[in-house]
Amino acid sequence: MLQRSSITSSEADLQTYYKDLDSLHMAPLWTRPDSALEPKSKLQPFLWRWREMRPQALRALELVGTQEAERRVICCVNPGTGRGATNTLVANIQVVGPGEIARAHRHTPAALRMIIESTGGYTVVNGETIPMLPGDLVLTPNWTWHDHANDSDTPMLWLDGLDAPLVGLLEASFREEYPEETQRAKEDIDLSLAKYGSGSLRPAWEQPDAEHSPLWHYPWTQAKQALDKLAETESGSPSDGVILQYTNPASGGPVMPTIACYVQLLKPGRRTQAHRHTNSTVYQVIEGQGATIVDGKRFDWEAKDVLTVPGWAWHEHVNESATQPAYLFSFTDEPVFRSLDLYREQTKDA
Amino acid sequence: MLQRSSITSSEADLQTYYKDLDSLHMAPLWTRPDSALEPKSKLQPFLWRWREMRPQALRALELVGTQEAERRVICCVNPGTGRGATNTLVANIQVVGPGEIARAHRHTPAALRMIIESTGGYTVVNGETIPMLPGDLVLTPNWTWHDHANDSDTPMLWLDGLDAPLVGLLEASFREEYPEETQRAKEDIDLSLAKYGSGSLRPAWEQPDAEHSPLWHYPWTQAKQALDKLAETESGSPSDGVILQYTNPASGGPVMPTIACYVQLLKPGRRTQAHRHTNSTVYQVIEGQGATIVDGKRFDWEAKDVLTVPGWAWHEHVNESATQPAYLFSFTDEPVFRSLDLYREQTKDA
Amino acid sequence: MLQRSSITSSEADLQTYYKDLDSLHMAPLWTRPDSALEPKSKLQPFLWRWREMRPQALRALELVGTQEAERRVICCVNPGTGRGATNTLVANIQVVGPGEIARAHRHTPAALRMIIESTGGYTVVNGETIPMLPGDLVLTPNWTWHDHANDSDTPMLWLDGLDAPLVGLLEASFREEYPEETQRAKEDIDLSLAKYGSGSLRPAWEQPDAEHSPLWHYPWTQAKQALDKLAETESGSPSDGVILQYTNPASGGPVMPTIACYVQLLKPGRRTQAHRHTNSTVYQVIEGQGATIVDGKRFDWEAKDVLTVPGWAWHEHVNESATQPAYLFSFTDEPVFRSLDLYREQTKDA
Amino acid sequence: MLQRSSITSSEADLQTYYKDLDSLHMAPLWTRPDSALEPKSKLQPFLWRWREMRPQALRALELVGTQEAERRVICCVNPGTGRGATNTLVANIQVVGPGEIARAHRHTPAALRMIIESTGGYTVVNGETIPMLPGDLVLTPNWTWHDHANDSDTPMLWLDGLDAPLVGLLEASFREEYPEETQRAKEDIDLSLAKYGSGSLRPAWEQPDAEHSPLWHYPWTQAKQALDKLAETESGSPSDGVILQYTNPASGGPVMPTIACYVQLLKPGRRTQAHRHTNSTVYQVIEGQGATIVDGKRFDWEAKDVLTVPGWAWHEHVNESATQPAYLFSFTDEPVFRSLDLYREQTKDA
Repeated sequence: MLQRSSITSSEADLQTYYKDLDSLHMAPLWTRPDSALEPKSKLQPFLWRWREMRPQALRALELVGTQEAERRVICCVNPGTGRGATNTLVANIQVVGPGEIARAHRHTPAALRMIIESTGGYTVVNGETIPMLPGDLVLTPNWTWHDHANDSDTPMLWLDGLDAPLVGLLEASFREEYPEETQRAKEDIDLSLAKYGSGSLRPAWEQPDAEHSPLWHYPWTQAKQALDKLAETESGSPSDGVILQYTNPASGGPVMPTIACYVQLLKPGRRTQAHRHTNSTVYQVIEGQGATIVDGKRFDWEAKDVLTVPGWAWHEHVNESATQPAYLFSFTDEPVFRSLDLYREQTKDA
Repeated sequence: MLQRSSITSSEADLQTYYKDLDSLHMAPLWTRPDSALEPKSKLQPFLWRWREMRPQALRALELVGTQEAERRVICCVNPGTGRGATNTLVANIQVVGPGEIARAHRHTPAALRMIIESTGGYTVVNGETIPMLPGDLVLTPNWTWHDHANDSDTPMLWLDGLDAPLVGLLEASFREEYPEETQRAKEDIDLSLAKYGSGSLRPAWEQPDAEHSPLWHYPWTQAKQALDKLAETESGSPSDGVILQYTNPASGGPVMPTIACYVQLLKPGRRTQAHRHTNSTVYQVIEGQGATIVDGKRFDWEAKDVLTVPGWAWHEHVNESATQPAYLFSFTDEPVFRSLDLYREQTKDA
Repeated sequence: MLQRSSITSSEADLQTYYKDLDSLHMAPLWTRPDSALEPKSKLQPFLWRWREMRPQALRALELVGTQEAERRVICCVNPGTGRGATNTLVANIQVVGPGEIARAHRHTPAALRMIIESTGGYTVVNGETIPMLPGDLVLTPNWTWHDHANDSDTPMLWLDGLDAPLVGLLEASFREEYPEETQRAKEDIDLSLAKYGSGSLRPAWEQPDAEHSPLWHYPWTQAKQALDKLAETESGSPSDGVILQYTNPASGGPVMPTIACYVQLLKPGRRTQAHRHTNSTVYQVIEGQGATIVDGKRFDWEAKDVLTVPGWAWHEHVNESATQPAYLFSFTDEPVFRSLDLYREQTKDA
Repeated sequence: MLQRSSITSSEADLQTYYKDLDSLHMAPLWTRPDSALEPKSKLQPFLWRWREMRPQALRALELVGTQEAERRVICCVNPGTGRGATNTLVANIQVVGPGEIARAHRHTPAALRMIIESTGGYTVVNGETIPMLPGDLVLTPNWTWHDHANDSDTPMLWLDGLDAPLVGLLEASFREEYPEETQRAKEDIDLSLAKYGSGSLRPAWEQPDAEHSPLWHYPWTQAKQALDKLAETESGSPSDGVILQYTNPASGGPVMPTIACYVQLLKPGRRTQAHRHTNSTVYQVIEGQGATIVDGKRFDWEAKDVLTVPGWAWHEHVNESATQPAYLFSFTDEPVFRSLDLYREQTKDA
């Protein structure tokens, strides 16, 4: 009868054997501890408070120029790993002073910007000027040229989200400097919004590449209006309330193949049902006051705070206000897990 | 050496042979004329004038009730075939009088409505109330329940577009009467628009069936705004000017698997380059005055006129006004040709 | 309260009205009979017997050359419509005499050949020579060049299946004569089979167009072996027994966008459960003896007989032999119905 | 005029600033070195020789039982990283002794086996018994139950390929022990091969999940035959010779969403053109003798040797034999790069 075999070897023999293997660049698998039954992240959930981040970001404005720092960016460091916000994503604060530019370049890591403070700056993406107003989502997908400029008289601050750690892990990081400091921009402002911003209508004279969204600007006015309207009648998802996914209008899918973006409204007093999924998520509070409980740990947040939730961590949200809705923006590596058949989700029984 | 063979038979022998075949429900292929090198439609291009159609539609209001006619619909009959507007599509005028309803049913032919005159009616699609204002596109896709109602004090008139001839050719026509005269509608008005109307944002708590658009209402205000904005800087397609496709926001594709819808703006004085394609098209003028030349024949149109262009017919448009843009809505069986690998397009050299 | 309206008009008024409409190329919809609740085909199920067809096909060999008939083809005429086997498909018998060729051409209708008798002919498809042996399926998809030749000393007979009626209905029929009588063929025989015939391995140095199968030859030896092997342990589909779909190895889908092909084995004594679907089907018996009951009418078949089953007709198969399996080849317009969201299927309760 | 700003700060001020950031779990981005213009892997290309690996594998048979080691597996350790063969893939040697089993479990990392030595063992995948013969490729995709057994009287040895490092990086590793030591296997042996092994025919009575291949066994006999046949007339890819991709017959795509498998034949004397791509690859020589030059470093290989080629490393192959073809099996994370829009390829000019 076929069965598992059992052999008792002396520790000395085994050590000799392992040393021999090592000399051949080989190693036994069986001496490693069994992998866990389910993921246990080294990442910690963590909340970065805007009231602490903002002064530090403005301080950078005084200490470092965009000559010295190609991008004046302050990174959120996960206390569990000492690296990015999650294993695949960074969440950074970028600041551009009045009259300043951040020079043009492109790279394979895909980026998004959630604008926090701005009275008039813009990003140029592949020659198209995109205005940046608070709450707007601006995309600079994989390998698109982009430079930033602030032509207002107040500093601009925004949240940068990138998949740089993922691209780094995959050793697929390419980078190129633009031959000039800035791109020559077309005259038409916000052309991608004019072409694709209505979402359900699109130019018939061009065939967008479906890899990433041809729309690079998702204005907050549009998102807020959609959320407010739906919140009148819909309760949305048990785990997330009235939650909308920003989509690639050419495919109906996520905005970029590595990053999905969401915006959600928690009605006054709403407490969502805890769930967890394999993908990790970074939230930024757009407006409101509330809390998120992650694996039993409570994080009280207010406007502009940044919260990271590791993959497979239980999390639930609560809007503590009895009168005001809370709006949360989030970005996540969910499309990676879906593409690779590694997506799983679980909802906690009530 | 292998070669084509030649045999001379007597006509008598052949006739006997053909008679024998016939008795066995068989027939020779070689007695049929060779098929043409390219399609030659029996359809005629034709223009139905609104100034002639409108009075006839209103006359129906006096002569027939929605009790007598489940739908009070007048069909455009192609002079070349004596049937629908094209071989696959019908273009009809429907009229609903003040206080009237058209009872609820569903069918496999897919339908669209381009609203011509209305001060307040609505369609209920699968329990959702959809307002109908002039220029709005309303969908009732394959097998969706729908009833119409006019709660205003003026008649409603609209253009019905359906793929009924195609579904008939394929013998796939199913129909069902709703158990009651009208559907019980949800309280929320225009829910599909609230959920999917921004196009680039969509509810994350439901997964739309990608077969047809989950959005059933494409308001004219949105389409006109997008066209006007783009026309400021873009010249659009050589053959069509600034032309937008209405899309299924869940897929970025056509609104229904058998029918695609477009809306285009011809700038004052614009003359497009002639082209032809295998799919057939029905146009309705939303606003403006101009002409379309189809296979050398000129059709002068004005607001609300309906024009049919057969497949593989050369056509070009001209906006005759020096000051006013022209807006054309159109629907076409293009997705059928694309799905079945029968789509071809040709542009006439200048 | 909104309700259906009722109007009593004089017949004279109505007739005047209808005449006026007619003069404007318009017509009332409400005078037409209601469409049926489900499809009722004008097609009749019908069986063409090989013992009757074969002599007629050979008779053509004596009466008509391939000089006179570009293709020496005898069509199966549906008794219900006087046209092809179904509304979308033709099923024809083609015969090529020893030493003969049928000259090269191409057309948008897609074609397949199920070889009935052959001791050595071949088809050249886009320059590739494809041997034709009994039971082999050979494809000449939309717009591929093809010529046939018989270099043996016996006549070749095969079943031609084409979507010509469908392409005709859609007015998308294009045709082109090859500049010479035959294509110059590459030296490698059966190259598509060498490249794609193992199905689960494919050349990495070329990217096949996914529209139709890059594999043009499906040998009977391979199909029979797969069926026999599976029949040892599997009962297959309740309605069809052990049934395999010929697939496009580049996509896993049907062999062509308009036609799917199947081959099935009915074990001795097997009687399948009746079902119906919107797509129409043409069967050819490869081996065996049995019957198919279509909408209550029984058709007893034997090897090489051709049977047409209209869409939405109930049908069940029975293998009357107690010892021999029966093998049925079939082709169907199913992909058209699936692409256009018109596919429906129903299984009769036992 | 907008421009980059320049600020000179004292080192002391900056250090104070950076310390403050650190206390808030933040960090400046600009103090990090610029990322490289293109990937520069820490991985080293490396060759593990079978004549060195084999004795070590057999030695494990004497020193460790499958009771002690759930899998008796020896890992190839990349000298550049001290971990797996590449950043995303492991290449291990597994040995199962006569009469032994390796107990049933499942996990989210996807696995493949390329059989090296075997006279009769098998793997049970989701209840289906799959024979394992030299050169066979056997898949145990993400979350499929699998146990191995050797019912022959010689040891079995094979190469294990898994995406475990990738799944680890993404923190999506789930694992489950089967309730019993082995699965109860169905009677039919090699059922997935019977159903899907012909590749261009598939059961119509079941709809395979397209995530990964429904075919779990790709016999060497089939692959070798296809390669030999094609090599008669085809030169294949400039960079890889006659190379076939093992495909998922349900989709025509890679066998698993994270791993693609290839097998290639290098004709006697063939030297390929150097190319590089972002994905990393592990090769195993099935038969033959030759060399691969990776970024200028030459690796001479013979049968069963294992070679790892990091992403974006130039590599070219040469078959040193004047008479014998060489056969190389390879597996790669290419589908990950394609799904995430990170695939790039470059061919070196001759």
